[in-house]
Amino acid sequence: MEAPVIRNLLEANDAIARRLKESFKARGILALNLISSPGAGKTSLLERTLTDLKGEFVMAVIEGDLQTDNDARRVAATGAQAVQINTGGGCHLDGAMVEQALAELTLDGLDILFIENVGNLVCPVEFDCGEDHKIALLSVTEGDDKPEKYPLLFNLSTVMALNKMDLLPYVDFSVETAIRFASRLNKSLVTFPVSCRSGEGLDAWYSWLREARKVKER
Amino acid sequence: MEAPVIRNLLEANDAIARRLKESFKARGILALNLISSPGAGKTSLLERTLTDLKGEFVMAVIEGDLQTDNDARRVAATGAQAVQINTGGGCHLDGAMVEQALAELTLDGLDILFIENVGNLVCPVEFDCGEDHKIALLSVTEGDDKPEKYPLLFNLSTVMALNKMDLLPYVDFSVETAIRFASRLNKSLVTFPVSCRSGEGLDAWYSWLREARKVKER
Repeated sequence: MEAPVIRNLLEANDAIARRLKESFKARGILALNLISSPGAGKTSLLERTLTDLKGEFVMAVIEGDLQTDNDARRVAATGAQAVQINTGGGCHLDGAMVEQALAELTLDGLDILFIENVGNLVCPVEFDCGEDHKIALLSVTEGDDKPEKYPLLFNLSTVMALNKMDLLPYVDFSVETAIRFASRLNKSLVTFPVSCRSGEGLDAWYSWLREARKVKER
Repeated sequence: MEAPVIRNLLEANDAIARRLKESFKARGILALNLISSPGAGKTSLLERTLTDLKGEFVMAVIEGDLQTDNDARRVAATGAQAVQINTGGGCHLDGAMVEQALAELTLDGLDILFIENVGNLVCPVEFDCGEDHKIALLSVTEGDDKPEKYPLLFNLSTVMALNKMDLLPYVDFSVETAIRFASRLNKSLVTFPVSCRSGEGLDAWYSWLREARKVKER
């Protein structure tokens, strides 16, 4: 009985995701779904990006967390529009939650929508939220074996940001190994080593964002 | 339709968990379910524990991962019995998986069974694997707000190990804040700041293990 129910759930979600994609396309919005372990730095990457590209793009954020509105308050402090979704016990966002959150945002003139998923390397990957790209974050404190151990995320993402590069001297992490494992799963994966603390590597991420946004221009 | 199905799943799991608990009790085995984010150091804590307490206890490990048998090989290198469960895409272990894995272990004379769950702060918490205690690991690189953001784990755990204390000088993490958030959820939570790299704090964890084992003695 389990399997058909899960299939129906995913099919229902895919129908909503298709609707979201149409709406993002019609409005020329670039939608990005950020997925990582808890504490890998999704909110920090958003704080930097929203601050540094403030004059260039109109950006908004949908924050997903089990509890608290800490992250929505952090990103709203940059001046960007932010909506918090509290999933209760839920381990991922889905299309319906994103659709509901969108009703709270001003979409006219919006260039980029960031969807910060619940911190979890597994479940969020299965639920399409209508995004143009999944962005995987992996922090160097988590170990270079994570792409091999959690393959689906790295397989389906367009970008892997390797965060917390400032901590690289203090941990056993080979950037080369992490990239090698990830590239085996996904030959076209683009990798950016970054540090949201020092700002290292963020320019390359911003260049990628500009290119991805261009494709969606109205 | 969703809710009843999920309830049935959890009820079915609880029945298996009760059976496991009876079996652990009859054999005097202390069973511990280790839960954390990916890369917080569950396997490192086990490697240290299995090595340092080798002469004192007979220990075995059930390893849960989506893919690979890396972790089972790491803990087996200490001389302990180890079984790897690969969940495929599954985001947590459950009672049935543990029951199946137990068939691969020699249980006679076993003192402590460690169940290393899939790296995930959400889903593993809901599925009782028959354990005596849930052990939460939080690494200081993940941020001191995690107990507040992922409350169920810290609410249901007996122990919170704060790992990677050697990295504390390089990150924004207040041990006091993390403990304050966690204690609000669970007044009887026991906290051990540890570093699996330097060995700091492991003695307190080992003392706790000895006490917990005593209660289960045959």
